[in-house]
This record gives sequence, C-alpha cells and structure tokens, in this order.
Amino acid sequence: MQSSFRFIKALARQDVDSTPVWFMRQAGRYLPEYRAIREKVGGFLGMCKNPQIACEITLQPIQRYQLDAAIIFSDILTIPDAMGLGLYFQANEGPHFKDPIRSMRQVQNLPIPDMQTELRYVMDAVSLVSHEFKNRVPLIGFCGSPWTVATYMVEGKSSKQFSLIKSMLYNEPATLLALLDKVTTTSCLYLQAQIESGANAVMIFDTWGGVLSPENYRQFSLRFMEKIVHYLKSNPITKSIPIILFTKQGGQHLKEMAQTGCDAIGIDWTVDIGHARQLVGHQVALQGNLDPSVLYATPENIEQQVKATLAQFGHGNGHVFNLGHGIYPDIPPEHVQAMIDAVRKYSPAYHQQGKVT
Amino acid sequence: MQSSFRFIKALARQDVDSTPVWFMRQAGRYLPEYRAIREKVGGFLGMCKNPQIACEITLQPIQRYQLDAAIIFSDILTIPDAMGLGLYFQANEGPHFKDPIRSMRQVQNLPIPDMQTELRYVMDAVSLVSHEFKNRVPLIGFCGSPWTVATYMVEGKSSKQFSLIKSMLYNEPATLLALLDKVTTTSCLYLQAQIESGANAVMIFDTWGGVLSPENYRQFSLRFMEKIVHYLKSNPITKSIPIILFTKQGGQHLKEMAQTGCDAIGIDWTVDIGHARQLVGHQVALQGNLDPSVLYATPENIEQQVKATLAQFGHGNGHVFNLGHGIYPDIPPEHVQAMIDAVRKYSPAYHQQGKVT
Repeated sequence: MQSSFRFIKALARQDVDSTPVWFMRQAGRYLPEYRAIREKVGGFLGMCKNPQIACEITLQPIQRYQLDAAIIFSDILTIPDAMGLGLYFQANEGPHFKDPIRSMRQVQNLPIPDMQTELRYVMDAVSLVSHEFKNRVPLIGFCGSPWTVATYMVEGKSSKQFSLIKSMLYNEPATLLALLDKVTTTSCLYLQAQIESGANAVMIFDTWGGVLSPENYRQFSLRFMEKIVHYLKSNPITKSIPIILFTKQGGQHLKEMAQTGCDAIGIDWTVDIGHARQLVGHQVALQGNLDPSVLYATPENIEQQVKATLAQFGHGNGHVFNLGHGIYPDIPPEHVQAMIDAVRKYSPAYHQQGKVT
Repeated sequence: MQSSFRFIKALARQDVDSTPVWFMRQAGRYLPEYRAIREKVGGFLGMCKNPQIACEITLQPIQRYQLDAAIIFSDILTIPDAMGLGLYFQANEGPHFKDPIRSMRQVQNLPIPDMQTELRYVMDAVSLVSHEFKNRVPLIGFCGSPWTVATYMVEGKSSKQFSLIKSMLYNEPATLLALLDKVTTTSCLYLQAQIESGANAVMIFDTWGGVLSPENYRQFSLRFMEKIVHYLKSNPITKSIPIILFTKQGGQHLKEMAQTGCDAIGIDWTVDIGHARQLVGHQVALQGNLDPSVLYATPENIEQQVKATLAQFGHGNGHVFNLGHGIYPDIPPEHVQAMIDAVRKYSPAYHQQGKVT
C-alpha cells in the first residue's frame, strides 16, 4: 500500500502530516451546484446511470473544498436493480422495488449481473473520475452490505421495523441465506470491477446491520461482509486496495469487525472514538465520527466539536476524519467548509510530522 | 421492597419461581378488543384522557394472558400537553404539537402542570386499575425521559434527524438545559403522583437517548433521569418503589445507567443479555430483550428464541422477560401467547425454587 495520498496512508496507519478528511454524501443535495444538475437532469437514478453526470457530481465537492477523497456518486441499490427488481424512486419516499423478493424460487431465479454490461455505467463513471483526477485525490468505490441491500430487496422499500425480512430470517433462514449469498457474490465482482476501473479504496455500507441482535448480526451481516473482504484480499489485483467497513449503530461490534481483515472501520457518533481505538488497537484505522447534526451548529461551535473529536482519537496515525452518517440536505455549505478548516488547523498537532515541522 | 409479586421480587433480585413476563405496548393495536374500543371512542388521546377507558385498555392484556405486570395505558407526551403545547395526533403520522418550543422565553413561560387537575385523568386511571386489580398484578406507572419528551417539544413532532433540538443543543445549550430541568421537575411530581395513586413500579422511557453521542447522552439525557431517580429514592413515600430505566439503543451506556440508583435497566435486542449481566453485575435487574420481530416467527421458532434468551441470561435472579421494544400492531395475538407459554415452560429451570420443586 505505497501511496502519496494522505487518505490511503491513514488507512494503512502510516505517518501523515494532517488527518485526512472527507464526508459521506459530500456530493449531494446540500450543494447548490448539485441541485442545479438535478433540476436539469431530473431523477436521482438517471443521474447515477449517466457516467458523465455521475462524474461531474462526484467532483463537485472536490472542486469546492480541499477534501482528501472523492466517493463515486452512485447508490447501494444498483446491484438489485441490475438483477431485475425494477428500482424506482418516489419523491420524498426513498427507493422502491417493483418486484421484491419473497420466496426461495425468486432467489434461485435471480441472475448475477454482468459488470461490463448491466453495471457498465458505474464502471464508466469510476473510469471517468479516475482519469480526470488521477494523482489529485483518491477515489472511493462502494457497495451496500449484503444484509442492508437484502432489506430493500425483501421489504421492497425503506423500512423501520423490517417485518418482512425478519420474518424470513426466523421462519425461512435458508431463503435469506441464499439471497445473501447471491448478493455477496455480486458485490465481490462489483467492487473488483470498480477497483479495476480505477477506485483507490472501497467501502461497504452496512446501514441496517445495527437493527439486528448480536447473534443475528454475526450470522446475517458481518459474515457476508467478511466474505467480500476475503475475496478482495485473496485476489492479486485487488489485495492492496484498502477496505473500509461501516455498520451504522455498530458500536458494540467493533472488535469483531476489526477481525474480518478489513483495513478500517467507519464509526458513528454514538461511539467515543477514543474508546473505539482502545478496543481495536492497531488492527485497523478508524473513520469518523461526528454527529452530522453538528453541521447545524455555528462555525465556532463546529470548530469546538472538531477539536474534541481529534482530542478523543489522540496522537498518532490511523484516523480518517468524517461524520458518523451522510451530510443532511439542509446543511449550509459554508458549515462544511468550517469543519474542513478546523480539521486542517488542529489535526497537524496530533501527527509526528506535524510536530516536527 | 417486600412484595409477593413475582415482577417486584425480580426487580429486587429476590428469588422467584419463574421469570416474570410483561410486554411494552401489551395494551395496543394488535389486540382486537383494543381496536374495538378505539373504533367506538375515536382518537388515541381521547382514550388516554378517559380514565374508565384507559383502565379498561390497561386490563385487556391481563384478562387475555397470564402476565406478571400491567402498565397504565397512557402516553409519554401527557406532560407537554398539560404544559399547554397542544398535543394532537394525525392518522399514521404520530404526535404533533401546535406550539413547539424554540426559545428561552418560551421555556421560561412553561408552567409546571398541577398533577391533581391538569393530569388528574392519569391519576384517576391509575387509581381505577389499582383498585380493580389490587393483589392480582402489579401496575407500572411511567413517563418519558426528559430528553425524549423534549425532542417532541422542540421538533413539534416525531423526527429522524432531530435537527432542531440538536441545533439547540450545540448553539443554545442553556435553553435546552432549562427545558430539560422543567420537564424533569414535572416528571418527578408526575411519577410521585402515579405512585401515590397506586402504581407499584415506575419506568422511564428514553426512546431517543440512543441518538446522542456518549458525552451528550450523559449531559442531556442520563443526568436528568438520574435526577428523577434521586428524587423518588429520597422521598419516604416513593423510595421503596422500584424504578426501571430504558434507553433504546443504549447498550453502550449500561454501566452508567446502573450507577444512577435505579433498580432495573430495560435493554433492547441489540445487546446480548448475558453480556449486559456481566457488565452491570449485581447492581440492577435487567428487563428484556427479544427483538419484537421475533413475534412474526412461528410459535415453534418463538419458543426457540425465548429459550435462547433465558439461556443467555442464565441461572439466578434479576431477569424480567420482555421485548426490546413495543409489540408491533400487526402481530398475531396467539404469537404473544406462545411467547408467554415458553417463558412459563422454560424459565423455572433457571431459578432455585424452580429447581427445588
């Protein structure tokens, strides 16, 4: 993992001059330039599926701010969409599937999509960004965790109680496990293809792993993320690419997550990052973890919160600064600037190189 | 705390013959007899405010099942309603307030409601149940945690991101602390009045404490629950009444919760109850903690899950069986029966008396 990128170095727990910073959903609705494109192009899915547009949106926050990483503008539901479930978005309602999965027969009939045809648009967007920004900032590719993607495939939409997939978990575990296996296989190929197209790091978003009991989390979420990690780490083309796992509300599972062989763990704000560091030791880097609501605060208060988080992590390497969840759509862009400025201002003191110069 | 009630004994970690069991939202929409009353009477709030109806609904699950406790049919938002915020419910949208709290001036103008007039209907319902069921099952009184109640008072409705109250937290903490103080004072009087009206135990529901960072949880939620505990425990009339604290998604705070002086902690299903028991030792009893989704499973699978939870807690006293959250409205009532049957069947083996007989 030799790289001059601060972000890649921090993921490898190597020396950096300053804590690298990027934000989940940094390319999104809070940016006026994003809303302008969205008004012109129309729906969210149309923007994801147009590589030129996806590239432009990916680069918007990089052009506006001094960020240490870009993340490809896409969605965790591209995989089930490519499997033929008929993804569509309704205004203010989130994603829906025309044909949700409810039976073993449906699982068995699900195809493994081809990366170079059905998911070509994602690879094209990754290639475009990668060429456009080579040697400037690293690009993060991503997928959802198999459990998280499966929740949408079974429920057919966003859920609060997860009644359908949990009924399946308790009453037809074989069906759920078969579905998770298929999504896992596809996710391995999907991340590999993104890496081959130019992604410099990958992240697995387990947005809904935190709604499971510890036992079910291990069996139905973590185990499948681990399979993806093993696949990528045992493949000569992908093994040097850092992998970040992120389970929202996963504060109780950090030790087990660190043992999967991943390079870093994303943590949300319900965890003390200093405590998290004690738990995982030198096994992995940590990414996080301010409450996205801190961006509603005044720039002065944002600065205080950044200082507190840097102090909680403490001296040394292995910290990538981020929020604990995506930026909310009604955040003022100048508050994001204030957060980046504070990381740049206060983090060098926590790094050896920062202390030497 | 001398009592013959299995529930009260378990909260005091005394010997019982069988693990006591009750369910959050055991009086609710999943019961056809509840839906029948609701159709006749109309809105949810009207049912809460009619002591005869509230008493009848409280007793419905007790008449149908062999439960070890009743919980008064009411709502955590009775307090802000009595403070004049104008509570109303919209179909499928949850609670709303006509006049949410946004400024220090509004906080200062908030009255402390009188328990014997503005909140008389709650005390009357508690008295009615208490008289009707004296010596049969203990009755639980309750309130929301000050933080949880304040989220509704500031946001004006249910929230996912808590943008307004978190802006207040970061930008105007004095306003939020003043609001929490006022709700805390009222909650102390409110629980005391419920106890004086006949409640045999009280529970504080901190539904939204889990959305805070550990530091903010301590400062804005736990500290105020602790004040309520101290108030009740230092008052001769209320000191012998057991207090249960429940923070949803609070698995990372169990040790600190146990140190407040409460008698028991409610835990949700994202915690391993055996691990929780190790953490809190003999300081408190534990209440929980099956995923309410388990009730979607078949009776056979429900039985397996109950067995697993009893085994996780292990031998000895101090366990009150419950779900980790309220019963969902679309659960078949016979599945609740299956869960209770399984607790009755398998729990005696974990208790000394059970082993002797």
